[in-house]
Amino acid sequence: MSLSLKVGVVGCLGRMGQAIIEVVSKTDGLVLVAGSEAVTHPKVGTCIPGTEVIITPDSNSVFEAADVVIDFTPPGNTAAHAVLAAEHKTALVVGTTGFSDTDNQSLDIAAEEVVIVQAGNYSLGVNLLKALTKQVAATLGTDWDIEIVEMHHRHKVDAPSGTAVMLGESAAEGRGTTLGTLRTPAREGITGERLEGSIGFSALRGGSVIGEHDVIFASGSERITLSHKAENRTLFADGAVRAALWTASQKKGRYSMMDVLGL
Amino acid sequence: MSLSLKVGVVGCLGRMGQAIIEVVSKTDGLVLVAGSEAVTHPKVGTCIPGTEVIITPDSNSVFEAADVVIDFTPPGNTAAHAVLAAEHKTALVVGTTGFSDTDNQSLDIAAEEVVIVQAGNYSLGVNLLKALTKQVAATLGTDWDIEIVEMHHRHKVDAPSGTAVMLGESAAEGRGTTLGTLRTPAREGITGERLEGSIGFSALRGGSVIGEHDVIFASGSERITLSHKAENRTLFADGAVRAALWTASQKKGRYSMMDVLGL
Amino acid sequence: MSLSLKVGVVGCLGRMGQAIIEVVSKTDGLVLVAGSEAVTHPKVGTCIPGTEVIITPDSNSVFEAADVVIDFTPPGNTAAHAVLAAEHKTALVVGTTGFSDTDNQSLDIAAEEVVIVQAGNYSLGVNLLKALTKQVAATLGTDWDIEIVEMHHRHKVDAPSGTAVMLGESAAEGRGTTLGTLRTPAREGITGERLEGSIGFSALRGGSVIGEHDVIFASGSERITLSHKAENRTLFADGAVRAALWTASQKKGRYSMMDVLGL
Amino acid sequence: MSLSLKVGVVGCLGRMGQAIIEVVSKTDGLVLVAGSEAVTHPKVGTCIPGTEVIITPDSNSVFEAADVVIDFTPPGNTAAHAVLAAEHKTALVVGTTGFSDTDNQSLDIAAEEVVIVQAGNYSLGVNLLKALTKQVAATLGTDWDIEIVEMHHRHKVDAPSGTAVMLGESAAEGRGTTLGTLRTPAREGITGERLEGSIGFSALRGGSVIGEHDVIFASGSERITLSHKAENRTLFADGAVRAALWTASQKKGRYSMMDVLGL
Repeated sequence: MSLSLKVGVVGCLGRMGQAIIEVVSKTDGLVLVAGSEAVTHPKVGTCIPGTEVIITPDSNSVFEAADVVIDFTPPGNTAAHAVLAAEHKTALVVGTTGFSDTDNQSLDIAAEEVVIVQAGNYSLGVNLLKALTKQVAATLGTDWDIEIVEMHHRHKVDAPSGTAVMLGESAAEGRGTTLGTLRTPAREGITGERLEGSIGFSALRGGSVIGEHDVIFASGSERITLSHKAENRTLFADGAVRAALWTASQKKGRYSMMDVLGL
Repeated sequence: MSLSLKVGVVGCLGRMGQAIIEVVSKTDGLVLVAGSEAVTHPKVGTCIPGTEVIITPDSNSVFEAADVVIDFTPPGNTAAHAVLAAEHKTALVVGTTGFSDTDNQSLDIAAEEVVIVQAGNYSLGVNLLKALTKQVAATLGTDWDIEIVEMHHRHKVDAPSGTAVMLGESAAEGRGTTLGTLRTPAREGITGERLEGSIGFSALRGGSVIGEHDVIFASGSERITLSHKAENRTLFADGAVRAALWTASQKKGRYSMMDVLGL
Repeated sequence: MSLSLKVGVVGCLGRMGQAIIEVVSKTDGLVLVAGSEAVTHPKVGTCIPGTEVIITPDSNSVFEAADVVIDFTPPGNTAAHAVLAAEHKTALVVGTTGFSDTDNQSLDIAAEEVVIVQAGNYSLGVNLLKALTKQVAATLGTDWDIEIVEMHHRHKVDAPSGTAVMLGESAAEGRGTTLGTLRTPAREGITGERLEGSIGFSALRGGSVIGEHDVIFASGSERITLSHKAENRTLFADGAVRAALWTASQKKGRYSMMDVLGL
Repeated sequence: MSLSLKVGVVGCLGRMGQAIIEVVSKTDGLVLVAGSEAVTHPKVGTCIPGTEVIITPDSNSVFEAADVVIDFTPPGNTAAHAVLAAEHKTALVVGTTGFSDTDNQSLDIAAEEVVIVQAGNYSLGVNLLKALTKQVAATLGTDWDIEIVEMHHRHKVDAPSGTAVMLGESAAEGRGTTLGTLRTPAREGITGERLEGSIGFSALRGGSVIGEHDVIFASGSERITLSHKAENRTLFADGAVRAALWTASQKKGRYSMMDVLGL
């Protein structure tokens, strides 16, 4: 008999919750057993679309029924979910961003009992790009100039993207220092020659681009570029579900998406 | 009997002069007949390498011998060369940059007698990209965001490149306005959403990149990119020689590289 | 008082019909007035979602109510719709592919009375790329090698894509000949040097890529690339709605998407 | 007192020899002490241009004077050079390609006494790309499609390039198998859907492109691309000189460029 890991989803009707349920339904070895929504949600008591799982307002029962719970709910629930995970010996995959130090500590405590995976970005590709960037920056000397270019849709209000900055941090780390000391301001006007070892950023905005990141390493005679391109918005759900599958074979402890990928 | 257009090169031992002579020697229908250098140049009186043409200090004799003269000498000689071109009914291809209003007027006067081609950039590709950019910007509405990205070697001291700005001007012109009103500052920090119709610029610096320019048009559902990449430094010589060949079939008048390309 | 063009959609609940209605609802100057579906469709008699327009089984009433009708229905209805368009003096935008010679003739006849737009691909970008490819190929000599590269998702069963072939035909046309004489087979093994003037094709397959096409022109010293990238599947609806708007200012006659774009 | 590693170059007037001498002259920590050419070469007895090193016909004296010798001479000299290296305890960096099994064994024997580096391609970037390709292929499952695309100048007579095939082998190795079982023929006509786990190749030819390679990994929702671009022909000299510097800190043994890069 093959593995059938029981999955629960808290916030199962949210944008991410729905995407996760769709991916779970297509993934061999996983079976959806429970989903919860806020008690005020009008669909509580009905079935999750495409399944026979009835939506409960009771998170506790989700943790009780499942081997692993996936949680992309807004900040504020993390501590409670961490306690439930530990209590029911249920693995937990957390994609919530912007949680507090207290939330963070509650995950550390739960990780003494169960498997906890937590990441700010569940894209396999972005996490892999992050690892590769650090590694390549460490391999190549400072005679290789580093430039990070990203493009996002016209509605994005900040620049460069958080992911671009994260990639810059990985590059700096690969070179044994911090981004603060290497980062070049956006270029405009008379900039002078490029400073050796510096890291440049360019932010393009236009149309509906979901997210593209290039990390360029340029020497006097060649260029290496590591690129990531998001094709659609399901990639975060894909990554979270992969993390859920991965928990089945792990010992208790706290992990990142880098661990899931073995990087 | 096939065409054999007689070519003269003033400043024939300069970096551009040498590149031009190499391209002329490989081009069917052209024959090098004369070359000059400053009277103080130690090689005056010897042959142009790879040819039997003796280097003269006398520009007049170059214009006398040739059907078309190519001139990439530093500013200061343009007016005198324009007079010689008119006097000897010799076509003139000028690549000198940074010349004065007086120089410019001297070209206008000579153009009443002979064919004059003058351009700041003789790259076929860049001139074509400029024309395409204007045309596409005129075709597509302001719901297509325009971004211009360029990459150059680490020694370049200004940003964005003059060519990138020129491309931005062509895009603005295509939309019936000027770049001044549409240009977005380099993005950094909280920029807010993209303004409709604005034109963004990104300048990458690294390694030994000769010159790459992308003009991106991004709508809510698709993206068109027009790109130019310089592979080596002979492209300017290639363009000037093409212009020289083209003069053979033209009536007197003043022309740009856009005319040569029929754009 | 501003323009308010009345739009009807036949096949309003089909995949393309729904996409068109969504774009119409967001476009200034257009108002949806009617939509039809096959009489057997269970939703006939209900409202088009997000509107107060009741779905009719009667195409005639759609043509009667609208200034312009958009038709992406399967082959078989074109002739009937052409007759209705002529009868009610309603413009018609047809995206149906694979129709017969008879269908085609019916459009020609209707075009004597009203504005007819018909195209196999309503992407603005692809049509623009087609026009640019022909123009650039005509401008640049055969010393510029042409390569066409496309990437599509892993489920595509033929190579190269129809659009890639269409782009190759435009390039050949720009050079005054046909693709048949210039097309190079896919390269594998000992191919010998590239034949001057030939056109190469490369077909990449992978993941979920909707559609990307590059047309590369490479000389001995520079490279121009014209690229198109589909970001999502609404681009065909966007193009059809643009064509519908455009009909308002045209005289009767038969037009292509190239006419709509002014190319 | 800083390190000053004494470098000798056999075949110092060959195309690669000259490129290597130029890079050595610009590299801190290295000093050129000797260079040889065939006894029949007319420049034997004169100085290596830009240096005061007299060109000798005697390879033995080069190995005697130097700490490390760089050898990109044609096949046929390798065995003799390996013996000289062992005899004088001089490190050896070999870039000769197409040598025999006997040559290969002579390197193995010399490596029992001194540091030997040997590689078919000294580009840092290509070797790094090879290592990254294997690593990424091993990390990502077969639901990520792999495509390898290369572009080279119009004179290249075979396809795909040797480097592209090498990258494909690394990808296959990362997946625990061989390229033979995964390689897809160049696509043309009705190919059917992409086979899971297969590796596709595309070979573009045009203009003067020195060499560009992309390794694309495409899943249902994202794409990672690893790219290498040769900017000029000095990159092989750069890599060989880096290898020479690296020998100073190594124990005797036989190494590849992958070892030099720590990959």
